[in-house]
Amino acid sequence: MTAAGQVEAQVRELPRPYLLFLGDNVDPNYAKTAFGLRDWAGELCIGEYALPGATTTTGLPVLTPAEAAAKGARSLVIGVVVSGGMISPKWIPTLIEAIEAGLDIVSGMHARLVDIPELKAAADRAGRALIDIRTPPRNLPVGKGLKRGGKRLLTVGTDCALGKKYTALAIARGLKARGLDVDFRATGQTGIMIAGRGIPMDAVVGDFISGAAEILSPDAAPDHWDVIEGQASLFHPSYAGVSLGLLHGSQPDVFVICHEAGRTTTMGHPTYPLPSIEEVMDLTIRQGSRTNKVIRCAGVSLNTAKLGPEEAEAVIAAECDRLGMPVADPMRPGPAFEKLLDACIA
Amino acid sequence: MTAAGQVEAQVRELPRPYLLFLGDNVDPNYAKTAFGLRDWAGELCIGEYALPGATTTTGLPVLTPAEAAAKGARSLVIGVVVSGGMISPKWIPTLIEAIEAGLDIVSGMHARLVDIPELKAAADRAGRALIDIRTPPRNLPVGKGLKRGGKRLLTVGTDCALGKKYTALAIARGLKARGLDVDFRATGQTGIMIAGRGIPMDAVVGDFISGAAEILSPDAAPDHWDVIEGQASLFHPSYAGVSLGLLHGSQPDVFVICHEAGRTTTMGHPTYPLPSIEEVMDLTIRQGSRTNKVIRCAGVSLNTAKLGPEEAEAVIAAECDRLGMPVADPMRPGPAFEKLLDACIA
Repeated sequence: MTAAGQVEAQVRELPRPYLLFLGDNVDPNYAKTAFGLRDWAGELCIGEYALPGATTTTGLPVLTPAEAAAKGARSLVIGVVVSGGMISPKWIPTLIEAIEAGLDIVSGMHARLVDIPELKAAADRAGRALIDIRTPPRNLPVGKGLKRGGKRLLTVGTDCALGKKYTALAIARGLKARGLDVDFRATGQTGIMIAGRGIPMDAVVGDFISGAAEILSPDAAPDHWDVIEGQASLFHPSYAGVSLGLLHGSQPDVFVICHEAGRTTTMGHPTYPLPSIEEVMDLTIRQGSRTNKVIRCAGVSLNTAKLGPEEAEAVIAAECDRLGMPVADPMRPGPAFEKLLDACIA
Repeated sequence: MTAAGQVEAQVRELPRPYLLFLGDNVDPNYAKTAFGLRDWAGELCIGEYALPGATTTTGLPVLTPAEAAAKGARSLVIGVVVSGGMISPKWIPTLIEAIEAGLDIVSGMHARLVDIPELKAAADRAGRALIDIRTPPRNLPVGKGLKRGGKRLLTVGTDCALGKKYTALAIARGLKARGLDVDFRATGQTGIMIAGRGIPMDAVVGDFISGAAEILSPDAAPDHWDVIEGQASLFHPSYAGVSLGLLHGSQPDVFVICHEAGRTTTMGHPTYPLPSIEEVMDLTIRQGSRTNKVIRCAGVSLNTAKLGPEEAEAVIAAECDRLGMPVADPMRPGPAFEKLLDACIA
């Protein structure tokens, strides 16, 4: 591992506060980054801005780039996605307006800001930065597999997009509230924007996934906790390699299994039934024990966003009885979630 | 998958014959590329060249770049690796010497030749090519997980550098000799240099590993065999993510477990004991069945290079009895290997 890579990976402080850009979005499902930032880094989001015709809102004050800059914003964050991960040509004039207003631009898209000549030219003229979150640090190391100090928790899942990031954020927040020394470690673009640093694990070359995970949660004090955002699933036909490299490199002492109540097939792969929670637990322990023999499952994070309060409570209680371990929806704070936190640090 | 990506992935013509460069290597375990080219594309390797202090040799004639060029060599191939895939600064003067002697440079390192200014300048001056095998095709797809026509065999391992490539090459050659329609599918730099095409699986971004494996062995006739070069091991603390993505995307019907007789710890990771062959079989079936329910193990390829003929025969027979399945060293042709081939196509 070169010092350069380590520094770059660990010190990726994004310019904040943010102005959230909603583009021309009309479907909240494609604005998860904006909502994630509002919910988990709200104090660092001073406003939102959208194009005419957009209907999605975070409820934050509407500010033009110039107004946001005047109020102290340091960057405009693209808070929406379009299919294909492209940067919509419709957004370019606003991004240039933001650059000329003195803001850096932060993007988690697959397509890179720096590859758009007009943006590059505008940023060079104005001396602003184009920050592509999905570009991983250079000089990532190969995994060493050596034990590091400190405690680590990883969220794993039965599938993609069912709450691994929110679960890690909620657990980190809950453990902090108990006075523990905790860092949330981000592995995806929204998490990196929230934490202000991290490594986009799904953009790392295969040979370096576990090495990237190792430097993401470096050696720490014995009572320090890293709560690491999981990616995908060991059972996912497209992305399992990322999940395994992240598991091996993170060397978690504890993992929490994330699942969405009622989801039965893999998102985008209807011929692939979801694994059971027991299968995920068993395979995660089996694979994770290769780099940390004491790995254990603390419980289940059950996404019940599509259920009403009573129904959610009933499903959570039933799963808790069935599995004989703590089950909670971190988005519904209360005794169940506190029990899950107890089990994490037991 | 874009047609462009598919074409680029499947067509990769390299300038041959080669001069093999051994750098300052003193550990044959890190000279897999040179030995692989000697053994499987020997007619295309006209010599070797090393730096003072190097002790590894392929036994090919020692030729300077100028002598090799005079004898018809078209490229110098870097035949050794260092951990992390860097290009040693000690090698640069020789690489420039080769460029100035009229040779292209072929490298399978992670670090790219084209990113080294002195090399780039020398190549531009001399009108030579810097060919980075490990630069994967553009526009690789995400894995679809859909069943493809044809039969597939994947070599898997208890560790790195113990015969997965040689085993796949020998099985492909053996099945061809039986009149079957077979393609060897290369996934590493040496295999690609031997086959003249392929995808450097360990250089593919995590999200696209299984997708790359899918296009590497595309839909084929029912009786066509793809014999796919495995990478690393599901148990390797650094590289298991690549192994899992390759397993999922290859959807093998059959796998052969590669092991080196007497190796007990993971190469470069002495604190990691090797998994048993039974553990590898069990976990490979378990994870491989996610994308191909009929996956089965045909037997074991046992690397006995460090043993004499009688000792090797005894070890192979003992393992065959112990495991109750075909065990052979593909480098020692004979009845045992023919039994392994029988089991592959049974």
